[in-house]
Parts: sequence; C-alpha cells; structure tokens
Amino acid sequence: MKGLKLIMSILEKIEKRGTWLTYRPDIKVLDCTIRDGGLVNNFDFTNEFILTLYKTCEKAGVDYMEFGYKADKKIFSPSTNGKWKFTTEEDIRNIITEPSFTLKISVMADAERTDYHQDILPKENSVVDLVRIATYIHQIPTAIEMIKDAHSKGYETSLNLMSISLVSEFELDEALDVLAKTEVDTIYLVDSFGALYSEQIRALAGKYLKVAEGCGKTIGFHAHNNQQLAYANTIEALVLGVSYLDATVSGLGRGAGNCPMELLLGFLKNPKYHTRPILKFIMEHVLPMKQEYSWGFDIPYMITGQLNLHPKAAIDFMKEKRTDYIEFYDSLVNGF
Amino acid sequence: MKGLKLIMSILEKIEKRGTWLTYRPDIKVLDCTIRDGGLVNNFDFTNEFILTLYKTCEKAGVDYMEFGYKADKKIFSPSTNGKWKFTTEEDIRNIITEPSFTLKISVMADAERTDYHQDILPKENSVVDLVRIATYIHQIPTAIEMIKDAHSKGYETSLNLMSISLVSEFELDEALDVLAKTEVDTIYLVDSFGALYSEQIRALAGKYLKVAEGCGKTIGFHAHNNQQLAYANTIEALVLGVSYLDATVSGLGRGAGNCPMELLLGFLKNPKYHTRPILKFIMEHVLPMKQEYSWGFDIPYMITGQLNLHPKAAIDFMKEKRTDYIEFYDSLVNGF
Repeated sequence: MKGLKLIMSILEKIEKRGTWLTYRPDIKVLDCTIRDGGLVNNFDFTNEFILTLYKTCEKAGVDYMEFGYKADKKIFSPSTNGKWKFTTEEDIRNIITEPSFTLKISVMADAERTDYHQDILPKENSVVDLVRIATYIHQIPTAIEMIKDAHSKGYETSLNLMSISLVSEFELDEALDVLAKTEVDTIYLVDSFGALYSEQIRALAGKYLKVAEGCGKTIGFHAHNNQQLAYANTIEALVLGVSYLDATVSGLGRGAGNCPMELLLGFLKNPKYHTRPILKFIMEHVLPMKQEYSWGFDIPYMITGQLNLHPKAAIDFMKEKRTDYIEFYDSLVNGF
Repeated sequence: MKGLKLIMSILEKIEKRGTWLTYRPDIKVLDCTIRDGGLVNNFDFTNEFILTLYKTCEKAGVDYMEFGYKADKKIFSPSTNGKWKFTTEEDIRNIITEPSFTLKISVMADAERTDYHQDILPKENSVVDLVRIATYIHQIPTAIEMIKDAHSKGYETSLNLMSISLVSEFELDEALDVLAKTEVDTIYLVDSFGALYSEQIRALAGKYLKVAEGCGKTIGFHAHNNQQLAYANTIEALVLGVSYLDATVSGLGRGAGNCPMELLLGFLKNPKYHTRPILKFIMEHVLPMKQEYSWGFDIPYMITGQLNLHPKAAIDFMKEKRTDYIEFYDSLVNGF
C-alpha cells in the first residue's frame, strides 16, 4: 500500500486555495439562469421573472447576472427568438430601472454570431459590466478581435472556450498561449458536453491556472450536469483556484442544465452569499416553470455525456418524449 | 501563485490507484436497489421485478446484489412491511432458482434489529454470500458480535458504520481501531446524510484505507445524493483506493437516493461492466415505478444535506407534497 501512503502524505501537504471551511475573496459567482435557461424556453421570460431574479441575485450576494446573448438580428430572427437572444440596452434598462451597487450585469457574445461593432455600445452608454465572448477553437481569431473591441470600449471581458473535450491538448495549449497575450480578464474552462470527470477538471484547471498565473488573468468554470457532476466539478475547480463560477437557479439550462446555484451557495462559506433568497425564487418562480418546461439530469443526457457528444441528440429525444433508451444508446454507440 | 505550483507538482506526482482510463481488478460493485429502494416503496417489489433485476445485474457484470434487510419479526411486523424487510432464505430461493456463477447475494442486518442467532443460517444452508452489518457507533459491541457470528457461520462480512458525519474524529478513530481487530472483511465509509464534500470524502477514505492497510481488509463506500454528490464522491473514493462501491439503479433509494448504477458503470473501464442492461431495466421497470413513487435529488433533501441532518424531515415534507421551501428551511435552521 505504498501508493496510499504517498497519496495521504501528499493530501496532507496540499496548500489548497480553500477548503469547505474557508472562503476566498477572489470568488465571483455568475448567474446565467436567463442566458443558459433561455435555451430551454426560447428566451421567453417575463419582465417580472427577470426583475425578481435580479433582486434575488442581489440579496443572495451573487456577483454577476447574465441577461442573455447579443445575437446578430441579421442572422437570427427576432420573430422566432425571444428578446434575450439579443439583449438590447433598451430591454435591460426597461427592467432594471434602479441598478444594484453590488450585482454586475453580463451578456454573452458568440463569435461569428454577433455584430459586435454595432451591438456592443461604448461602456459609458451601457449598464452592462462584463462582455463574455463564447468561441469554438477555430473562431479564436474572431474572438480576439471581439476581446479587443469590448476591452477598448471599456468593459470587463471573459473568453469562454467551448467544446474543449473534443480539442487535442496540443491545440488547447496553443489556444491558451494566444489568449494569454490578449486583454481578456478571465478565461473560462467550459465543460460543454458535461463529459469531464473530476480528474480531468483538476488537470485542466491546473493548465488554465498556470497560463493565467503569468499574465494576471483569472480563470472561470462553466459546467453542464449530464453526468450529475456539474456541482461536484465546480467545487473541485474552485478549491484548486478557479475564481469565476457559473451557476443557474435550479440548474435551469439546456438539456441536463448547469451547476445549481442553491448547491453552490450552500458550499461557499463567504458570509456575503445567502441561499435563502434563491430558495424563495425557486418556490415562487421556478416550480411554476417546471409545469411547462423540463430540464435537468436524465438518462439520455447521461448517455451523450458519457460518450463525449454534444447533447443535441438527447435534447431531440427528450422533446419527442421518447423513453426507448436502448435504441437511443445503440444509435449513438453504433454511430461512432 | 506559490500554492498553485505546489498543487500542480503534487497532482502530477500522485501515484493514484486508478484514473478514469484505468481499472482495478479489486473493484466490486454492489447493487442495493432492493434494500435501499425498499425504503421508498416499503419493500413492495414483485418477484418478477427482483428476478429481472438479478438477471440484469448479472449481465451488467455487477458483483453483488443485495436482496433486503434481515429484520427481526419480533420488532417489525410482517403485516406492515414488505417481505424484503425480512429476506428469508425461502423468499430468495423462490425467486432465484438458478443462482448465477458471477453475481453474489448480500443481505443487510441492522445491529439491535436482527435476531441474528436465529435468522442468519449457517452458510452451507444459504444462497447468501455476504452479510452486511449496519450499525451506529454506540452499537459497535453488538455489531462485533454479529460479525463473529456471521464469520463463523461461513459468510463474507462487511460493517457499515452509519451517520459518521455526526461522530467526532476521536471516536471514529477508536471505532476503526476496534473494527480492525475483528474478522470483518470490508469496512464501509457511509455518507448517511449526503452531507459530505469531496474533500471530506478524501480525508475519510484516507483514514479508512490506512486502518484497512494494516489488517488486510478492504474499504467500501455508500453514498446518498442529497447534494448531487453521490456519484462524484463515489468515483473520488474509488480513485483513492476504495474497492466496494454501492449503487442503485436510477439511484432508487430513500429520499435523495443513492449513487446511480448507470453513472457508475459508465465510469468504470473494467471490461466486465456493461451499462446497456441497466438502461434496459430502467426503461422497462423503473420508469413505470416512477409513476407511483418519487425519489432523487430535490430541494428539501439538499437542505438537510447542507445542514448535516437526517433526511427524515425532508422525506415527511415531500410526502405531504409541500413546496414551501422557505418555511422548511427556516424551521430547520432555527431548530438548531
């Protein structure tokens, strides 16, 4: 049992960034209920839902609330997408007439799907604080232009590099090296398919943190719950030193959903965070929504997660209210 | 960022028992769907359900299937409890007419609630392979008698020490020292309230493994899903060296349920394990059960887990179909 002795002596010596009993002031919690949840209900939220969520996040001590995407109306039609697919300045201001002093506002801008020159206003004309740029690895040159644009306009910026479980280590290293040289404030580790195990999260978080170390950037983590690991992997990443943590109320988000905010705030011991307002919001606003929409862990999402596949096939399967798991499983396994 | 460097250099050096890409032949998967799930439906399973599960576990490569408790009929009435609360030899043999060569059978015997002298037959008269003795810390003297009894009758034995999140470290150390001197084959780390985080699992698994190391015993892990950590903590424990892993199909089990078998088998890379038979069983036998009974992660179970409380209050709350989470939360927090 030499291995065990080594593991235990090492675990005892680990100088962690935090444990379940400590807190770190660098932690920032970002609520993306509207943005990721919008993928469940086609961004069809009432103004009251969003305003109540905003007040809830403020009371809960959440640091950022993401209102939606900044999609290009020339690419996506406003007649078939709810308004938070586009998140105009006017739409936000119509709801948030009294901005919070503590809760910042973020939007997500997809590379190649955002008319950022036009639709990202100069910061002095906007209530938005943080522009989060989402990109696939092949779009990084565009994403870098978008970082420059948002940064020069006066925003905080983050870069969310998606679908990395399909990217080779060599390419990922290169991407991170390039990103380290940009003005971006935060680089997000994203588990798009909910496919990553804690060991992989540890290795990847270490890689991202090492890159960030040299250039004064922070690292974020965005999880999906396909294998019931969204919360577990989030607390694993944060203990290692990741600072920006994405979560959604009741895990509301596409397919298996995200890291549930009520679990994350229950873990964080920073006295500024409070679970109670989130519970109230769930009771009053999320339970009614569950009558109409479904999301969260289920067998088909588990299967795509285990196979490291995009959840699209599982989402379609669930929409058709199918339960023939074996046929679904076989079609994916034999599809390789 | 000295801390990060240290963590990374340490993680690189860790001589783990396994990663997500390896497998260890010492791993044993134990299905306790009937025993823990019996707490959901008062042990009201049809013979067909149990026989199909038995064949399913065999096909899936599961190592043990637990049929139920060996409760004392003088303490619990057979008129108000299903027969798998008592799991007689006759009841098992009525179903399993052709025992598997690979799938062993276990039963659970609660300390102080089992007439073990009478109800645990000599091994030569029984199809049971493993007697699992469940005990609270104050019942350990009784549990030790039961270990002796089952061991001398010819069974494999395990000891499941419950509710340790309420036990002081000093007492736990003492209990483990005593257990190390018994004939028991496997000592189980049990997260009865689903209250433990991965850091705590790592520390506790290390402690248990250290004790087992000196006396040739193995360690098991039994999780509950109150904080959506049952599966995450199970794979954390197994990577550190825990060998016996409890799981139930669809996580069927009291309250928030257990580690889902379909997730665990998806993680284990040992070629003997197969997820597909489990998916078939879920589709054909568990989905219909979900029409009648409910279990699995929900807000009230999360609250008792976060507060390190027995889930009883949450189970009662859910049975009454209440959703006033705030009142529930306040009643528990103010009840301290």
